[in-house]
Amino acid sequence: MKLLITGGGGFLGARLARALLEGGMLAGRHIEAICLTDIAPPPPDLLADAHVHAATGPLLTQLDALKEHRFDGVFHLASAVSGECEADFDLGLRSNLDSTRALLDALRAQAAAGGPVARMVFSSSVAVFGPDSGVPMPALVTDTTLPAPQTSYGTQKLVCEHLVADYTRKGFIDGRSARLMTVTVRPGKPNGAASSFFSGIIREPLAGVDTVCPVGPEVSHPVSSPARTVDGLIKVFEASREALGGRLALNLPGLNVTVAEMLAALEQVAGRAVRERVRFERDERIASIVGGWARGATAERAARLGLAPHERFTDIIEQYIADCRARPDAALTLKGLIA
Amino acid sequence: MKLLITGGGGFLGARLARALLEGGMLAGRHIEAICLTDIAPPPPDLLADAHVHAATGPLLTQLDALKEHRFDGVFHLASAVSGECEADFDLGLRSNLDSTRALLDALRAQAAAGGPVARMVFSSSVAVFGPDSGVPMPALVTDTTLPAPQTSYGTQKLVCEHLVADYTRKGFIDGRSARLMTVTVRPGKPNGAASSFFSGIIREPLAGVDTVCPVGPEVSHPVSSPARTVDGLIKVFEASREALGGRLALNLPGLNVTVAEMLAALEQVAGRAVRERVRFERDERIASIVGGWARGATAERAARLGLAPHERFTDIIEQYIADCRARPDAALTLKGLIA
Repeated sequence: MKLLITGGGGFLGARLARALLEGGMLAGRHIEAICLTDIAPPPPDLLADAHVHAATGPLLTQLDALKEHRFDGVFHLASAVSGECEADFDLGLRSNLDSTRALLDALRAQAAAGGPVARMVFSSSVAVFGPDSGVPMPALVTDTTLPAPQTSYGTQKLVCEHLVADYTRKGFIDGRSARLMTVTVRPGKPNGAASSFFSGIIREPLAGVDTVCPVGPEVSHPVSSPARTVDGLIKVFEASREALGGRLALNLPGLNVTVAEMLAALEQVAGRAVRERVRFERDERIASIVGGWARGATAERAARLGLAPHERFTDIIEQYIADCRARPDAALTLKGLIA
Repeated sequence: MKLLITGGGGFLGARLARALLEGGMLAGRHIEAICLTDIAPPPPDLLADAHVHAATGPLLTQLDALKEHRFDGVFHLASAVSGECEADFDLGLRSNLDSTRALLDALRAQAAAGGPVARMVFSSSVAVFGPDSGVPMPALVTDTTLPAPQTSYGTQKLVCEHLVADYTRKGFIDGRSARLMTVTVRPGKPNGAASSFFSGIIREPLAGVDTVCPVGPEVSHPVSSPARTVDGLIKVFEASREALGGRLALNLPGLNVTVAEMLAALEQVAGRAVRERVRFERDERIASIVGGWARGATAERAARLGLAPHERFTDIIEQYIADCRARPDAALTLKGLIA
């Protein structure tokens, strides 16, 4: 089968591509080729793989060139992130709404031309949920909580969930939407996501860098490790329509954790000196966005697909450290730990 | 104030325009001008009114010409209807999604250029609700029922509700979405809406015309008279953000009634001979669309704005008859009653 991963040059997309290439199979079929499209090229190890084709540039400008392919499956991960979308409304609409619509229409055209009806996993987000002065947000958002996004990012994700469902109902694609919990610990640099600090307060101290937490220690949020998130994307792709249980959008599993608990876990794994590299300095812009997010989530339908969250945040930190140790720049990424 | 009514040449739009012109005021302000845009020109009585300006053509092609105006308020009623959108997917996306997005962007540009932040009522629909194999639809859908549209029309309405909410959150407009119940009795000809028969089974027999009901007598649905629907649009426009109670989308009141009850009311008002002009002949296409709709609705938040449904369907039929009697073609529209 031929696969497309949008956002395939990014951290999650590249990790997903590696997992797929390593397994060689998806939903019982042999993976012949993976096309990775993103604004930046994929990492060298993926570029060097004979199964991989890279298409670099904004998704909207790539779709014409991609028409020669006939994709059996798509993981649509490309997205502008929450902070960017709040700062630049047009960017969000273009990157998250227009691009998804164009991708859906390209897949519809592929099917109309006699090609396969592509199976598609759309990466939605826990950011579809929000507080609502009419109906307070429950302590834990579930698969059936009424979404009330409080950001443009969350709005665009929710809108795309509904488009994916309608294109699927019409038979143009075989789509499903996986609501990702906040992925932590992301490697690399901070990004424009308002949630970036959920990785930063672990990653930077481990690298020996002082960092700031822009929200209070009491802030609670559902998070997931990169590995469990990639597992979730694959399992949701492989699930039959019946196993999904009707609705096409579902929560991926998350560990509900407070910032205080994250830092306690960091101290437990890496020691007090590492934990003390984090200081609290409230950032009103970030705190206001995060204040509109879910404090915790459940994922009943994902559980029925065999997906579970990590049980302890220390496990997530330990996975991150193990990932770093496998990388050539381990001395840098774990400088704080080694010191 | 200057108002825009999209779909202003249609039945509801024209009725709304007449109600506004008669009152002369809206939300405490004097109405100076009303622009009616629609694919067809408005009725002659409205064209003859010095306060009325007509802009005829598809909304998407009208928005440039409308830029010279600075609208204080907008009633966005223009829409392709449910049956059309199921038959022609692109038409639905263009008429319902692209047009709304373009209107929102035009209003945003108006505000950015120093013009007023327009208050806008978007006419959404009870069609945002649907059954869901994961979570059965409740007997009565409420303001907080999780929408699960089963038509492209319902999907597009729901998507636009969320865009209206996000443009409002950003301060580009002051928007709210009123979910209309099925409006009955509509005068004139049947239209492409799957719900058209909810008017046809009353209107045609009263006009002395035999007609077919495409669904069974047990089918239940929330309906509203044209007058109560127009009242609802005006009250939702006039409501403060606080009075709306947080969420920007709310159900308008509906009378929950079965087809059998509608026909019993027809017999009570107009006699057995008139009721017997309706025969049942199942239409699978219509029945399948209607089968995905709400069987009844409540409207708690609209009630707090002082809006109530009719209590008896006979009241709705009597209002229709009174409306017909006031028209020059009463002899035709009430031929079955007079005979």
